[in-house]
Amino acid sequence: MSLISGFSKLTRQQKIKELNRSLMDSFDFAPAFLDSFQLTNAEEQHKIESFSENVLSNFHLPFSVAPNFLVNGKSYFVPMVTEESSTVAAAAKAASFWYGHGGFHTQIEGREKSGNVHFEWVGADKELLSFWQEYKEQIVRVAEELSLGMKKRGGGINSIELQKDENFAQTYKIHCRFDTVDAMGANFINTVLEGIASYFKSLAQDKTEIIMSILSNQANGCLVESSLVADIASLGDLNGLAASVWTQKMKKAFAIANCDSERAVTHNKGIMNGVDAVALATGNDFRAIEAAAHAYAATSGTYRSLSSMESSEGQIKLSLKLPLSMGTVGGLTRVHSLAAFALDLMGVNKVEDLMSITASVGLASNFAAVSALVSSGIQKGHMKMHLSNIFMQLQVNPEEEQQLVKFLEGKTISMTTVKEELQKLRMQGELC
Amino acid sequence: MSLISGFSKLTRQQKIKELNRSLMDSFDFAPAFLDSFQLTNAEEQHKIESFSENVLSNFHLPFSVAPNFLVNGKSYFVPMVTEESSTVAAAAKAASFWYGHGGFHTQIEGREKSGNVHFEWVGADKELLSFWQEYKEQIVRVAEELSLGMKKRGGGINSIELQKDENFAQTYKIHCRFDTVDAMGANFINTVLEGIASYFKSLAQDKTEIIMSILSNQANGCLVESSLVADIASLGDLNGLAASVWTQKMKKAFAIANCDSERAVTHNKGIMNGVDAVALATGNDFRAIEAAAHAYAATSGTYRSLSSMESSEGQIKLSLKLPLSMGTVGGLTRVHSLAAFALDLMGVNKVEDLMSITASVGLASNFAAVSALVSSGIQKGHMKMHLSNIFMQLQVNPEEEQQLVKFLEGKTISMTTVKEELQKLRMQGELC
Repeated sequence: MSLISGFSKLTRQQKIKELNRSLMDSFDFAPAFLDSFQLTNAEEQHKIESFSENVLSNFHLPFSVAPNFLVNGKSYFVPMVTEESSTVAAAAKAASFWYGHGGFHTQIEGREKSGNVHFEWVGADKELLSFWQEYKEQIVRVAEELSLGMKKRGGGINSIELQKDENFAQTYKIHCRFDTVDAMGANFINTVLEGIASYFKSLAQDKTEIIMSILSNQANGCLVESSLVADIASLGDLNGLAASVWTQKMKKAFAIANCDSERAVTHNKGIMNGVDAVALATGNDFRAIEAAAHAYAATSGTYRSLSSMESSEGQIKLSLKLPLSMGTVGGLTRVHSLAAFALDLMGVNKVEDLMSITASVGLASNFAAVSALVSSGIQKGHMKMHLSNIFMQLQVNPEEEQQLVKFLEGKTISMTTVKEELQKLRMQGELC
Repeated sequence: MSLISGFSKLTRQQKIKELNRSLMDSFDFAPAFLDSFQLTNAEEQHKIESFSENVLSNFHLPFSVAPNFLVNGKSYFVPMVTEESSTVAAAAKAASFWYGHGGFHTQIEGREKSGNVHFEWVGADKELLSFWQEYKEQIVRVAEELSLGMKKRGGGINSIELQKDENFAQTYKIHCRFDTVDAMGANFINTVLEGIASYFKSLAQDKTEIIMSILSNQANGCLVESSLVADIASLGDLNGLAASVWTQKMKKAFAIANCDSERAVTHNKGIMNGVDAVALATGNDFRAIEAAAHAYAATSGTYRSLSSMESSEGQIKLSLKLPLSMGTVGGLTRVHSLAAFALDLMGVNKVEDLMSITASVGLASNFAAVSALVSSGIQKGHMKMHLSNIFMQLQVNPEEEQQLVKFLEGKTISMTTVKEELQKLRMQGELC
């Protein structure tokens, strides 16, 4: 294929035509296939196409709810969007289990975000220091002017500070801290930082070279902790194990995840299954959340689990602490109709409430995964859902399904096993 | 709200009714709203609902393509699914830019995955060692029997090894390495591990307590590197800066991201914008990819950038190296109709090709972000898209849009600014 020019300027129909033409030799498809996923509501469809560029169709993911999430004494149906089988079922099961034990309790440590103007200074350190002393007030004023809208909503710029970048000669940053209230705030922060950089450059002229101005997705100023506490004696059996047994095994599993990075990655991935499902459902940026969470897990110098489990005096406490930079306004949160619905469904306006619920779903996913791992194993629940996907893919009819389920009892389920048995069944059918 | 029982057993219509009833006091919605996002094709709709649990509707994300991705000499339209404005446009712009410079070159370091059976041993170390020597062969045989299907496809179990967990007394793991060929392989690995654990337990009886059997999402055995190389003199201007200038500034920006974790998190987040968009479009598990990538970024003990930039003798080289545990078969890849379409669109069957393309999109996103940051700033391109979202949200008509764009020229764009100006315009209109 040679370079294709002006593709983004084409209409959707023209783009599909061009794609069809370009791929002619290798892949033939009917444009109607891509049309079949479009919404019938033209306004909604137009909206989706405006979210991104070169949009050809809608990619659909299941929009689910997990009931019985008791968070700080209030019960929620939590919206979740995920393609992974059993994530919603597992979270809902954990939520129901903990409903009778007071549910989730959360603490927000802050909602401060940061960003930097990175620059080089042509001259001595002390020259920059005196420049900074002279002009800092003016720079702050410019930053505050740029933040007026955010100030009205109760936020704004919290601090502006000059920092030396010790890794390089003559390299510095203007480190800024922000309160973006109920917005994730990336656009606001970047706009203010670029404004500061441009003003700084206009003052310092040839003495400085601005490298870049950008928010940090490291969100250690937006930590949230969700916890579960219960008397072991009150907990009851789980997957056939007595409370004294499964709590002890879980404690060991949590301890391993805290020391062993190879395990911690998977442990935390299980947490993020829940966190991202809520982020997606509410129109939040899950890449930002993922980056912040995993970087936070590596703070000690060893990559560790984000959650922990303690037990003493007959009580257990499970806690998950992670940074969550989210929004209930701004970005797509109110533009994507189902994201807006998701937020309304929970009656959530304050970002602190969304952070609390999201962290709790992360902890629920974590509890569900680890409690399954130490008892019946992870595959039992997972394969039940996976099997239904396999059946669908092989276009298994109800009668065949019945026979296959019987055949697979106690066996290792894989696509190959199912396929082979299905072929046998179908051949038998033909022979009859 | 009191505890809701049996929710998952209800039909979709019953679930919506129950939701409506439970939320009556706080949130009123028409069931038709949730229906409006359903597909008209009943079979496709049924399929989506089978992916997850408690599914009430379809959450739609734009399905886009980025043309001109020249990877290892072959040109691709790359499917991307993302809700973030300008991600696709930026990746496509970077791909076009590099098309004329030979495009992306990739190297795959492997496709090995790992998993562990964690267990406690009741007895002395050396007792376990002699037990292991006696039974290892049998355990390997059981593992190989469980892997027969995978072996037929060219993969299977690569190694089984006993390891001591140095963090705890009497704690060990059976560390296994797998080749899952073109599948991500989580279900296969977990099934084999659970089989090994159950056989091990049957041999060791009361001498052991199995803690858990689970794959690791740490995917350092599946590293892929994508690189861009060009003579600086051949590169030309970018956003108004000469090649000698922007390459030098970019090099500094990359160096900062390598040392400064606060920046590295955002730098890597920009990479993952591209990576996750391809993962989503092809039905791959982006939580697994995210966890592996960020944990890998923290390997040195400091969280660092995943990509780097070098220059010497008038040449620059940009490289991104990250673990990518993906699949072109299994999971949702062939079940979700648009994921299957996405793979067919690229003509990709071998997982190595998908890894190569995905890493290249990550590098393209990275290049686009950093090259914008060091030149025009990130907000210019981003706000163009963001503005169209704001207009949509405020239901701005084309005439108002024209006036607003004129007003906003050179100003900091925020929802508040646009809203206020729009109110003025509308009030003026009423007064006329």
